[in-house]
Amino acid sequence: MTIESRKAQSTLQKKLFKIIFMADTTAGRIFDIFLLLFILASVVIVMMESVQSLQGKYANIFNVFEWTFTGLFTIEYLLRIWCSPQPRKYIFSFYGVIDLLCIIPTYIEFLVGGGHFLISIRILRLLRIFRIFKLVPFLHESRFLIVALQRSRRKIAVFFFFIMLMTVVLGSIMYVIESGHNSGFTSIPVSIYWAVVTLTTVGYGDIAPVTPLGQAFSAVIMIMGYAIIAVPTGIVTVEMNNIRTSTDVSARECPACQRKIADVDAIFCKYCGSHL
Amino acid sequence: MTIESRKAQSTLQKKLFKIIFMADTTAGRIFDIFLLLFILASVVIVMMESVQSLQGKYANIFNVFEWTFTGLFTIEYLLRIWCSPQPRKYIFSFYGVIDLLCIIPTYIEFLVGGGHFLISIRILRLLRIFRIFKLVPFLHESRFLIVALQRSRRKIAVFFFFIMLMTVVLGSIMYVIESGHNSGFTSIPVSIYWAVVTLTTVGYGDIAPVTPLGQAFSAVIMIMGYAIIAVPTGIVTVEMNNIRTSTDVSARECPACQRKIADVDAIFCKYCGSHL
Amino acid sequence: MTIESRKAQSTLQKKLFKIIFMADTTAGRIFDIFLLLFILASVVIVMMESVQSLQGKYANIFNVFEWTFTGLFTIEYLLRIWCSPQPRKYIFSFYGVIDLLCIIPTYIEFLVGGGHFLISIRILRLLRIFRIFKLVPFLHESRFLIVALQRSRRKIAVFFFFIMLMTVVLGSIMYVIESGHNSGFTSIPVSIYWAVVTLTTVGYGDIAPVTPLGQAFSAVIMIMGYAIIAVPTGIVTVEMNNIRTSTDVSARECPACQRKIADVDAIFCKYCGSHL
Amino acid sequence: MTIESRKAQSTLQKKLFKIIFMADTTAGRIFDIFLLLFILASVVIVMMESVQSLQGKYANIFNVFEWTFTGLFTIEYLLRIWCSPQPRKYIFSFYGVIDLLCIIPTYIEFLVGGGHFLISIRILRLLRIFRIFKLVPFLHESRFLIVALQRSRRKIAVFFFFIMLMTVVLGSIMYVIESGHNSGFTSIPVSIYWAVVTLTTVGYGDIAPVTPLGQAFSAVIMIMGYAIIAVPTGIVTVEMNNIRTSTDVSARECPACQRKIADVDAIFCKYCGSHL
Repeated sequence: MTIESRKAQSTLQKKLFKIIFMADTTAGRIFDIFLLLFILASVVIVMMESVQSLQGKYANIFNVFEWTFTGLFTIEYLLRIWCSPQPRKYIFSFYGVIDLLCIIPTYIEFLVGGGHFLISIRILRLLRIFRIFKLVPFLHESRFLIVALQRSRRKIAVFFFFIMLMTVVLGSIMYVIESGHNSGFTSIPVSIYWAVVTLTTVGYGDIAPVTPLGQAFSAVIMIMGYAIIAVPTGIVTVEMNNIRTSTDVSARECPACQRKIADVDAIFCKYCGSHL
Repeated sequence: MTIESRKAQSTLQKKLFKIIFMADTTAGRIFDIFLLLFILASVVIVMMESVQSLQGKYANIFNVFEWTFTGLFTIEYLLRIWCSPQPRKYIFSFYGVIDLLCIIPTYIEFLVGGGHFLISIRILRLLRIFRIFKLVPFLHESRFLIVALQRSRRKIAVFFFFIMLMTVVLGSIMYVIESGHNSGFTSIPVSIYWAVVTLTTVGYGDIAPVTPLGQAFSAVIMIMGYAIIAVPTGIVTVEMNNIRTSTDVSARECPACQRKIADVDAIFCKYCGSHL
Repeated sequence: MTIESRKAQSTLQKKLFKIIFMADTTAGRIFDIFLLLFILASVVIVMMESVQSLQGKYANIFNVFEWTFTGLFTIEYLLRIWCSPQPRKYIFSFYGVIDLLCIIPTYIEFLVGGGHFLISIRILRLLRIFRIFKLVPFLHESRFLIVALQRSRRKIAVFFFFIMLMTVVLGSIMYVIESGHNSGFTSIPVSIYWAVVTLTTVGYGDIAPVTPLGQAFSAVIMIMGYAIIAVPTGIVTVEMNNIRTSTDVSARECPACQRKIADVDAIFCKYCGSHL
Repeated sequence: MTIESRKAQSTLQKKLFKIIFMADTTAGRIFDIFLLLFILASVVIVMMESVQSLQGKYANIFNVFEWTFTGLFTIEYLLRIWCSPQPRKYIFSFYGVIDLLCIIPTYIEFLVGGGHFLISIRILRLLRIFRIFKLVPFLHESRFLIVALQRSRRKIAVFFFFIMLMTVVLGSIMYVIESGHNSGFTSIPVSIYWAVVTLTTVGYGDIAPVTPLGQAFSAVIMIMGYAIIAVPTGIVTVEMNNIRTSTDVSARECPACQRKIADVDAIFCKYCGSHL
């Protein structure tokens, strides 16, 4: 292989890298949009395949589509490996693994077969959308939400911990009350499942109390759940409020030190003490 | 046609325009109130028609009512066209189309027939209520709510996008877990429907997990949904709070120090003490 | 009747009035507490009467209790009329009517009979509890909540108006989609009922979509309902926040004019302008 | 018993006390972690025992585990009594009672037997987790939540009181409307149970209105419940917000003007400009 060809290749790699991994060039943007469309289309196909009636009629068409998408994604995957500066790093990165998981099932199924478990893995192709998120014009909003959730992360965790303890205890109590009179509460785990269904106000009704005591007790659980929902809401609201105020529009610059002052009513710069 | 008559007509048009399209005259207000009553009445009739038992007994009466309302709305529609300065503009305006959609079905049904699809279109008459909204004394409040929702528009959109991705992924996972053991999870789309029903804490129970793993997994989904509801609530609350504080009508500037005073009852600037 | 006796009577009336209508005397408080107990007891009896099994066994006991309570409440009612300065005003006051409604049913039933409709009216005795509310140590909190709800009254009303329009329109659309394929959506009113059940995330499941289109559409409704719940929450939260800040603990008195200043950062009294 | 041995013992007691009751030593922390694991394991066993299929196969294994845990907890209990400075105080303390309740059932069942009521009591072992909470790194967050709930305690209580009155009245009304046409609304208590299920938007669907009037009325209840949920949410959110702003750790007083400065990064008082 001559030096020229090698140089040519490396430049080609660089070009491809820009197109495939970034979105700041027109080519890159177009590539991402097509990728997005292919991902969505392939996901839709996976869904339709799972519908018996459709699968019966259009099995072949689905197959064709499936193989086309798999082919395209395989090429894309190989190109990504080829043009990325550190192929190994890419392969073992989160998206590298996802990319692989999105193409392997089709091959395995072809060779070994393996029912709808494999088919469904391909739904994970949906996760690839996030990679194209750099396109999205809502980046600011999504960051806002993510930051808000990150900040309330620990409080929410504590909340979940309490909820879990509660559901275990409440479920067990209901098991004691209902089991024997009710075909639904067959075991403590099932009763805990019921407690979650009730406390979160989902209320399938697949399992419901029948004894007066059980109904009274679950009424209490419901009202508790009805009030408890206030906790995560409060946490997130407060955090969002803090973000909002910390990045306030009314922030002005100190004439002396140019630092941003968020307080509407500050008379003196809180950093350098000069009069605003 | 003499000039006089033409003038007379044009003046009549102007008068009618004022009455039909505006609400600042007594006549206009009365017209709107009657229109409101007719709309509500016609909607009630459409509803009652859909009830088999009533339809059986009172079909004729309903017919009479239906034709009366259609007649009145037709006349109104023609008058609107006639008296509006730019008839074409009106006809193709949102309300123009709605007004047409509200009378056409009855005629089509009479000529062609077409079952309850046509009948139900007439429910859209309800949308005409919004035109009369200029009457409503709650205009300020509704504007407040609309502004709040508009401001949180983009964040809510992102939230919905995430919810959709989640439901697709969660639904597919549940499909893998439950299908085969559960007659409910027949396909991925149905499982996604279930995921929405569960995540939003609606919980019909028409489809419910039966496998221990499925129940455990859906318990997790429920608690997630229970916490996720905090996000839109937080968004809207924060926005409302901002409107409340930012667009405080009573906010004025201190003549001496130019600082904004939000307090309705302030007589002196709370910062520099000068009289407002 | 001598003047003495008349005077004696009037003084007795005054005493009784103080005891029965007010709670600032020990006697008054004791009276109220007993009244509270009797009300609760009589309500419990009414509930137990409605339970077939109990009614079968203890019909007589219930009867005795019922008549005792009716007797006591009748005496109380007559005393209230007798000792109130303007009997007529009391009789036609809200509580006067309630008091009458709480005793009449038993008599009517005895004379005419009239099944559980009459029996259940007696549950209204519960409303009498509010009269004794002046006792409750939570008066401040309840006032807080009531004020918050009153302030958000108009906004909530608008919100309800929109919800109603939405449910009517959404319900009708679902009727068009589902009726024919689904035994549940028999008429538009029923579909509207379903729309409310779904939008409020109650989700009984007594009526549930079966067509793919119907399920897709109701998924959208659910997510809407899931986000819409943010609106009343936001409204109430903001109002509560305003009350909280306006009646702030950090409020100090202006040394000059003694008016309460809620602003933490006020430098000059906003009423009289004197330095704080 | 010689003085030496007595001394030795007392020192041993002190050591043990440090290890068992506190978590500030490495030994203490290790002890707590093991205790945590044993508690969780024993709870899992209790749950699995309640599952018929598992109980059938692994009854013996469960028995062995159960007795091991009971043994260990018994030893722990005795040690706690022995090494605590005031044994009596410990025995009758909350945790002392819990500790006893966690071991007794196994013995009673062995001697007397008593079905899954006794078995389930052992779930209370879960409550022992809270004792080990001093370990948890989320202590700050949980305190935040607890304080928020404590502060809104009274308001929430009033809210619950109103909810209870509402459910009783609404349930009774529904009983009058539905009973006779609906096999679900058998009695007022059951109707109240239904009212709670509906108002809290749980909506099992085990009992659902069938009469048009009943459905209309419950639609109203649902929308009410949908709006009422705003109340606890508002309460908690506001309280959290107050904690957030009031107990800002970094709040200090300006030496010159004594005003509270909440900003962590303030170098100069924003009111009087003097150095902090």
